[in-house]
Amino acid sequence: MKALEEKILQDGQVRPGHILKVDSFLNHQIDIEFINEIGKEFHRLFGDRPITKIVTVEASGIGIACITAQYFGVPVVFAKKAQSLNLDGSLYTTKVQSYTHGRVYDVILSKKFLTEDDHVLIIDDFLANGCAVQGLVELIEQAGAVLEGVGIVIEKGFQDGGKTLREKGINLKSLAIIKSMTDTSIEFEEQEI
Amino acid sequence: MKALEEKILQDGQVRPGHILKVDSFLNHQIDIEFINEIGKEFHRLFGDRPITKIVTVEASGIGIACITAQYFGVPVVFAKKAQSLNLDGSLYTTKVQSYTHGRVYDVILSKKFLTEDDHVLIIDDFLANGCAVQGLVELIEQAGAVLEGVGIVIEKGFQDGGKTLREKGINLKSLAIIKSMTDTSIEFEEQEI
Repeated sequence: MKALEEKILQDGQVRPGHILKVDSFLNHQIDIEFINEIGKEFHRLFGDRPITKIVTVEASGIGIACITAQYFGVPVVFAKKAQSLNLDGSLYTTKVQSYTHGRVYDVILSKKFLTEDDHVLIIDDFLANGCAVQGLVELIEQAGAVLEGVGIVIEKGFQDGGKTLREKGINLKSLAIIKSMTDTSIEFEEQEI
Repeated sequence: MKALEEKILQDGQVRPGHILKVDSFLNHQIDIEFINEIGKEFHRLFGDRPITKIVTVEASGIGIACITAQYFGVPVVFAKKAQSLNLDGSLYTTKVQSYTHGRVYDVILSKKFLTEDDHVLIIDDFLANGCAVQGLVELIEQAGAVLEGVGIVIEKGFQDGGKTLREKGINLKSLAIIKSMTDTSIEFEEQEI
């Protein structure tokens, strides 16, 4: 998505440890008008699938998932990190390694909101090593639901997550794939659109 | 908001400890069409104010804030719980007591995204003792921004948060205020609209 690549080049900042900060429009401040363009693009890419639910994981995926869901006319379900007193005992659960936060956390999703009748589109802001998406895929498998696709805003193509998911035959589409990045430059992979 | 009260009566479940579960449409599964009605209502209530940013706190406020922001044409900034490696050192910070999770956590917001030029509408899903909103108010004060209002989806009127905020002169509006609830009934406060 050309407009996204331009936005990353304009507003993104590369930090030590291969961290790309896009917190001015994506995951701290959220540029709602721009996220609507992202939602439209996800609908262009996955709109032919019989999606019944959009699934994401808290926190930074939620806004993007909600805006995107408007184009599909379906609800969002967001998986939660760690057990909350407000959740039922009746949960799908898995464990996810967070490299950003350096720890393992539980990801949970109420059985009420995902069943074998569901056709799911996973939406998330970033894909690096793929642990978060992998965790969501496991929850969807536990539910017996059909995974129709995974839509990612920014994929770090130099990490393994995307490769692993595609090798499993998952219909993964990332709106921008970063081939390499340094303090002074960000290069994107060419994509057919 | 009549439609919200009806939705709570239809889908809400009261659990021990004065917990109202509305996770089928508000804070686990998100009914996007219904949240759009909520967004329109917030715009009806606060649309005459010169809002430049909508501020919320992760995680369950984010979806509501993003959908609502579309009616105001402004960005969302969501405050984060606890220090993340992906955030700048340049932060507004405060501490918030969570009764749901039984602990105190840090809430942070990057100084880049809130300044004295901003006119802020706080949006959140629940108001009970008011600690989360109080924390956001402190961050807004640190920024020197103008707090134009606080929009809450569901206020627990039998807890102190709303009273405390209104006594401070804060322009707080809750779309549904619960006067009392038991296993078998939920009563709402009458509101002028």
